[in-house]
Amino acid sequence: MDMYLSEPRDLYRGRAAAIIKPANAAEVANVLALCHAQGVAVVPQGGNTGLVGGQTPDESERQIVLSLQMLDRVREVDPDSNAMTLEAGVTLARAQDIAESVDRYFPLSLASEGSCSIGGNLATNAGGVHVLAYGAARDLVLGLEVALADGRLLSTLGKLRKDNTGYNLTQLFVGSEGTLGVITAATLKLFPRPRSRAVAFLGLDDPAQALALLNFVKEHAGPGLQAFEILPRLGLELVLRHIPGARDPLGAIHPWYALVEIAGFSDGEAERVASATLAQALDAGKARDATLAHSLNQAAALWRLRESMSEAQKREGGSIKHDISVPIDRIPEFIDEAGRRLAARFPQARPVPFGHMGDGNLHYNVSQPVGADKTAFLAQWDEMNAIVHGLVAEFDGSISAEHGIGRLKRDLLARVKNPVALDVMRALKQALDPKGVLNPGKLL
Amino acid sequence: MDMYLSEPRDLYRGRAAAIIKPANAAEVANVLALCHAQGVAVVPQGGNTGLVGGQTPDESERQIVLSLQMLDRVREVDPDSNAMTLEAGVTLARAQDIAESVDRYFPLSLASEGSCSIGGNLATNAGGVHVLAYGAARDLVLGLEVALADGRLLSTLGKLRKDNTGYNLTQLFVGSEGTLGVITAATLKLFPRPRSRAVAFLGLDDPAQALALLNFVKEHAGPGLQAFEILPRLGLELVLRHIPGARDPLGAIHPWYALVEIAGFSDGEAERVASATLAQALDAGKARDATLAHSLNQAAALWRLRESMSEAQKREGGSIKHDISVPIDRIPEFIDEAGRRLAARFPQARPVPFGHMGDGNLHYNVSQPVGADKTAFLAQWDEMNAIVHGLVAEFDGSISAEHGIGRLKRDLLARVKNPVALDVMRALKQALDPKGVLNPGKLL
Repeated sequence: MDMYLSEPRDLYRGRAAAIIKPANAAEVANVLALCHAQGVAVVPQGGNTGLVGGQTPDESERQIVLSLQMLDRVREVDPDSNAMTLEAGVTLARAQDIAESVDRYFPLSLASEGSCSIGGNLATNAGGVHVLAYGAARDLVLGLEVALADGRLLSTLGKLRKDNTGYNLTQLFVGSEGTLGVITAATLKLFPRPRSRAVAFLGLDDPAQALALLNFVKEHAGPGLQAFEILPRLGLELVLRHIPGARDPLGAIHPWYALVEIAGFSDGEAERVASATLAQALDAGKARDATLAHSLNQAAALWRLRESMSEAQKREGGSIKHDISVPIDRIPEFIDEAGRRLAARFPQARPVPFGHMGDGNLHYNVSQPVGADKTAFLAQWDEMNAIVHGLVAEFDGSISAEHGIGRLKRDLLARVKNPVALDVMRALKQALDPKGVLNPGKLL
Repeated sequence: MDMYLSEPRDLYRGRAAAIIKPANAAEVANVLALCHAQGVAVVPQGGNTGLVGGQTPDESERQIVLSLQMLDRVREVDPDSNAMTLEAGVTLARAQDIAESVDRYFPLSLASEGSCSIGGNLATNAGGVHVLAYGAARDLVLGLEVALADGRLLSTLGKLRKDNTGYNLTQLFVGSEGTLGVITAATLKLFPRPRSRAVAFLGLDDPAQALALLNFVKEHAGPGLQAFEILPRLGLELVLRHIPGARDPLGAIHPWYALVEIAGFSDGEAERVASATLAQALDAGKARDATLAHSLNQAAALWRLRESMSEAQKREGGSIKHDISVPIDRIPEFIDEAGRRLAARFPQARPVPFGHMGDGNLHYNVSQPVGADKTAFLAQWDEMNAIVHGLVAEFDGSISAEHGIGRLKRDLLARVKNPVALDVMRALKQALDPKGVLNPGKLL
């Protein structure tokens, strides 16, 4: 049972009365009906890749884990309607492949895509690298099949693009972390496949210039802009130090960097738009320097610089992490002020804020001082969190931009969330799961 | 009081104990708190342009109309974050102008945009001509301020693009037609302004060719595709007959037509993509003929052909209307089968199905037989509705794609909606408005 009771960060290790693996939605519904009648708590679990403990049972040995892994049928793929209906246990990577097999594109893309599953992606409203252009998991779903707490099966499945016949039940379940119902299948949107992609790496003065560049590129590349990521010089240095084969793509040293990806839908469009936009951006003083990848290998090498950030930070020693968002225009101010406040209390700690600038989402990770003791540094986790999350509140930001609440941030949420919003959430929970059998102890 | 008690189609005429016009959100909340305490029913009303009677009180003279017109402040416009926060009574046309004043684009666009208001647009999840590219009102909102039934004020306002901290309360209120809360303000998304637009008019064999063309253009124009509308030859003939100045833009007669709009974000891009895509589409047999507008005047003339459809049908005599959607790939089959079934029962009636092919949304309107008596024809409304809506159910479609339910389709909804979905909707209504003071008799 162990693989169902532990989770990726080893923060939690649960015990369970049983691991139940239904083969289809009707069996899921039957399990819930029985658990509801008996008052047995159910912890739904997809690919078990969540980072906040939402999929792990508690230590009582009285909860059951309901694994959706066996629900892995492809119910329908319809390229003409640009929609596919998949069961919850289909992995994200397989969903991407299914789209590609009918010459379509499914844009959700995450580090764990080989093992995370569609049901979990939707239950947690997963994000990833293409939110800027296509939205999060929430924006990619047309309908759901959901087993309710009492064992009834609700379906909003279907390929309709427009349907104004009542409350949007689909969006209520997306992001509810298994506390309102168990997603058993979903109808997902498909998109045209881009014909070309251009990837650029730019040297910048500071986050304020990154903001100006972001809006410049949005205006000139329009909806072709696929990703806009930033990292500071220290981040690039850590990657160059720890990741074999990593090379600085720009000759000179710059305080900040941006990685920009642009897609095109007619031949050569991506390169044409990207090179014209970058040339104008340099002329207009929106960047210090820029390089455009001229091959798929070069593009992959640029992406690797960004994607190696977490690994490079890990090899550098301890790091204290925050998954936060603020309004995009306040990112520069946030980075300045967070740095100031941390420096006042932890003068030797090294902030390495990086990530999805285009979504206002930073991985505000702080590396330990050079030569410091890792354990002693990590012991400051809560205190550092309090400083960063306090600033997030002042900036009307979010303490969980993409990873969710689960067990890890449940108590924090109760302290920082608008009390009326919390009340309404509790009223909805009471309406849909009055006996509290669905994932108790998570989120609320 | 009369202007608040009648509605555009003159289907309903209500009476009211009072018309209340609060000046701000706190006053709205106070009104609701009082009404909640006294058990007085409240009918929220925006620009009073809805087509299903959702904004009209009943005939009892015991309900009050709560007009949001005086809540018309612009709270914030932030082009850097691509967001604006407007109060509910701001008209849609003003919202578009506000966006333009900061060099941004707000894509929601409707016939009634001069008088309809943002609060009403969101309460009814309004659609319009750009849903294909930007989604409906639901997809354009980042957060809401809502007065709850008991007078508490809930805020999810804010400019965050990513926030995974609990249930999506915003989407629950969008499209709930004032039955779960009263929207007092909204944070809306802004978009880059397209630099160029290309509009084309194509002659087609049939709806099946329109479907093939739609997917061809999606693949070649990508997210630049802004609109894809269809109309049959009879529709164009009615426009040419009744609308002064209308001209057939193609030399020969074609059984069907498509209007396609493509936007570009770099100089000349729209024309380049449109002309290349159309040339390839003609080569590949996806259309019989095509013309591309070469001036803003020509583009406007092409759009006028499509936008005059309702007016032309009105001048031709009686027409029986349906606002339906089906999965996009089934549009051709639906048009065939609906035509067959109607012909069997009403051999002389003339279906003129037209509209938002790109969204799977048809205005399936049926014109009276040539020379028939209008009143006698319109007396068949319910019987014809039953045939068309019966087919919609067989096609897993929607009986209200964009106009909502209100009072007009409330009984119909109770018959055709999935019973579990109806139960869940009732549970949500009970949780948020247990005393039933918000817009009773509408939707549910």
